Amino acid sequence: MNCAAVRRLDTRAPGFAAAFDALLAWQAGAPADVAAEAAAIVEEIRTNGDAALLQLTRRIDGVDVADAAALELGGNAMQEALASLPAPDRAALDAAAKRIREYHERQPQGGFEYTDEFGNVLGQRVTPLDRVGVYVPGGQAAYPSTVLMTVLPARVAGVGEVVAAVPTPGGARNAHVLAAMAIAGVDRAFAIGGAQAVAALAYGTRTVPRVDKVVGPGGAFVAAAKRLVFGPVGIDSIAGPSEVLVIADGSAEVRWIALDLLSQAEHDAAAQALLLCPDGDYLDRVQMAIDQLLPTLSRADVIRQSLAKRGAFVQVRDMAEACRLANEVAPEHLQLAVRDAETLLPSIRHAGAIFVGAESAEVLGDYSAGPSHVLPTFGTARYASPLGVTDFQKRTSVVRVRAGGLAPVARTAARIAHAEGLTAHAAAAEARLAAGEG
Amino acid sequence: MNCAAVRRLDTRAPGFAAAFDALLAWQAGAPADVAAEAAAIVEEIRTNGDAALLQLTRRIDGVDVADAAALELGGNAMQEALASLPAPDRAALDAAAKRIREYHERQPQGGFEYTDEFGNVLGQRVTPLDRVGVYVPGGQAAYPSTVLMTVLPARVAGVGEVVAAVPTPGGARNAHVLAAMAIAGVDRAFAIGGAQAVAALAYGTRTVPRVDKVVGPGGAFVAAAKRLVFGPVGIDSIAGPSEVLVIADGSAEVRWIALDLLSQAEHDAAAQALLLCPDGDYLDRVQMAIDQLLPTLSRADVIRQSLAKRGAFVQVRDMAEACRLANEVAPEHLQLAVRDAETLLPSIRHAGAIFVGAESAEVLGDYSAGPSHVLPTFGTARYASPLGVTDFQKRTSVVRVRAGGLAPVARTAARIAHAEGLTAHAAAAEARLAAGEG
Repeated sequence: MNCAAVRRLDTRAPGFAAAFDALLAWQAGAPADVAAEAAAIVEEIRTNGDAALLQLTRRIDGVDVADAAALELGGNAMQEALASLPAPDRAALDAAAKRIREYHERQPQGGFEYTDEFGNVLGQRVTPLDRVGVYVPGGQAAYPSTVLMTVLPARVAGVGEVVAAVPTPGGARNAHVLAAMAIAGVDRAFAIGGAQAVAALAYGTRTVPRVDKVVGPGGAFVAAAKRLVFGPVGIDSIAGPSEVLVIADGSAEVRWIALDLLSQAEHDAAAQALLLCPDGDYLDRVQMAIDQLLPTLSRADVIRQSLAKRGAFVQVRDMAEACRLANEVAPEHLQLAVRDAETLLPSIRHAGAIFVGAESAEVLGDYSAGPSHVLPTFGTARYASPLGVTDFQKRTSVVRVRAGGLAPVARTAARIAHAEGLTAHAAAAEARLAAGEG
Repeated sequence: MNCAAVRRLDTRAPGFAAAFDALLAWQAGAPADVAAEAAAIVEEIRTNGDAALLQLTRRIDGVDVADAAALELGGNAMQEALASLPAPDRAALDAAAKRIREYHERQPQGGFEYTDEFGNVLGQRVTPLDRVGVYVPGGQAAYPSTVLMTVLPARVAGVGEVVAAVPTPGGARNAHVLAAMAIAGVDRAFAIGGAQAVAALAYGTRTVPRVDKVVGPGGAFVAAAKRLVFGPVGIDSIAGPSEVLVIADGSAEVRWIALDLLSQAEHDAAAQALLLCPDGDYLDRVQMAIDQLLPTLSRADVIRQSLAKRGAFVQVRDMAEACRLANEVAPEHLQLAVRDAETLLPSIRHAGAIFVGAESAEVLGDYSAGPSHVLPTFGTARYASPLGVTDFQKRTSVVRVRAGGLAPVARTAARIAHAEGLTAHAAAAEARLAAGEG
């Protein structure tokens, strides 16, 4: 079977809303058995530390070492990997790193300080986190790009120490991943993965240092473990399958759009590729191009599953309707493959990243445009943001009440404290008030 | 028993580290039975909507109405409550609101846009969330201050609709809370609480609108429910008991410091009040002041439990050691009741809010200083921030690759895609590259 017939929906057809909803439905949260196994793994690491980490890494990744220290990927290994890369590969990683750095250098949130009408000084201090853990997936494929997209924002934020975890199934260490760690400036890295890696970073073991926040994408076990450790450590988000929603008006090169959908479907069988277009003929032509291109691609099986399970061509009435549906989906990636992309832009309210115009392929965002490719999935772009510098910073409120400015602030506080029935609060404010007035 | 002997630790005593660790330990996460009951409640609301909400509100809050619409606290009720307040109470809420608004107006993170060396335009768009749910605790006491501290940052961010939930045990609606809703500009409010309120906001019912994010403090059931609904909706954080850590050098008025510790302990039996000071005599005097003040306070029982269970006076070697311990605790509130507070400030790395100098009482931060009193608890100030405007905004990456700037970006992307074995990704970049060069 060389074809991948993508389901066709029409917004004018009866039952469209239900069909579209069904398409968007995805089992959020881990299946119960994954959640239970992840919980058991997290607890094992928390209780038995290195011993559990060694045993789980042996069982799950097939990496059999006697001492947890042997799981560390040393700085030398990273530098050697970097030196071993073909020159064009190294140049590409360097070029991507430069662009990612440049983008994120514009992101840091600033502190501020101001003096109120009474002479009190209020402020916000912004500081980097001390130590961060970055999870780099490594099961189905190796992702040097994810190393750059997670570590560089942390580095720009000024994080004290970046610790990376990447599984090495069968002990295979990927040179590109290690080289990307050297380029991005990872401080320490460990060949560990899954829920056990997340737990080791969250609670620390004798070998793996405890971090303040765990970030980065991962599969179902990683997602389940992140949900469990949230609290004692911070997490960025709980990632779902990757998605693209392409809005087309029929003006873009058919083959480009076909490849954009195929590259999204290539990620994994649960990935979602949606194309919204008012022109039925155009949809037909994209379908034909997909069928032609499919046999040339190495991950055709994954693509077929993904397109069959979650892909769709939606024939819309017009661009306004396409934007309405896009906002309902709140997709991770939104591609505006239309002639007047700039005029549509204000209508898009929810998306992790917007690619404006057919030249702006989503794949450029995956690697080299500049913004992080770690983006909110599964409709969470309604409230969540791309991974960025602010994820590696924290704010602290700073309050300096001066003797001269104390009275009005304390009087207000005392009054509300009384209304809340908190007499110790009121007394603490009134004690200052007496001094301020005395 | 009128006294509340606070435990005394000395950093020079053997076993100090273990004793201090034991003091900081707190059962993070809900006890298993609370977690299970919260999960059952969340599932019931998700499945049965209004019917479950009515039944649970009847059982848990003792509010018996036939129609969920009767749980709505209408705009009229808020305005009437505002009109009913004693003038000084209204003035205090207005004054606090003004200061909170002024502080948060300095906070919004900005978007940006820049053109790279090749003519491509990269940017970040910052937009407010559409609809937010604010949980206002209302079990043990009523908190109009929490209404101001959560709703005003959302309003400054430009959130489309703010929906509040506050339990009204026995049907008692608190006039100050409703008045604060009118002042802060709540759009809709419901007399619902606990896990059922969080679930109703997260999933929506026929009566309660589904929100994009649920924020605000709450007890164990609220915390457990927030952990469960995270994903489909955003959450701010999972709050633990409130804490203050006071560093004193013996220069501050003894009674002020005693009241600061008492007001923290007043919150609930699990709240934590810590005082670090190198001067043992000063600690003795604070203890005496606590014993004197205790009988004058309405919540003396709660204070006694809190101080006995989790309070401590720690005699430190010097200020440097006090700062080191403070960073280990990463307290929600840190008070620098010392003469040279400004010089200590740079040594403090982790705290939700810092109160600089003895005049800057923590209680002022609870009500009227300006920053939100919703702060990271239980050591999460290592990675988390005060609730603020950014919690109600989201970022979207915007990528505009121009025909002229396509080639270098696409070439980099294709090369890395090949290294990752993603041939559809590579082809999507190369298709553009061909056009860019053609």
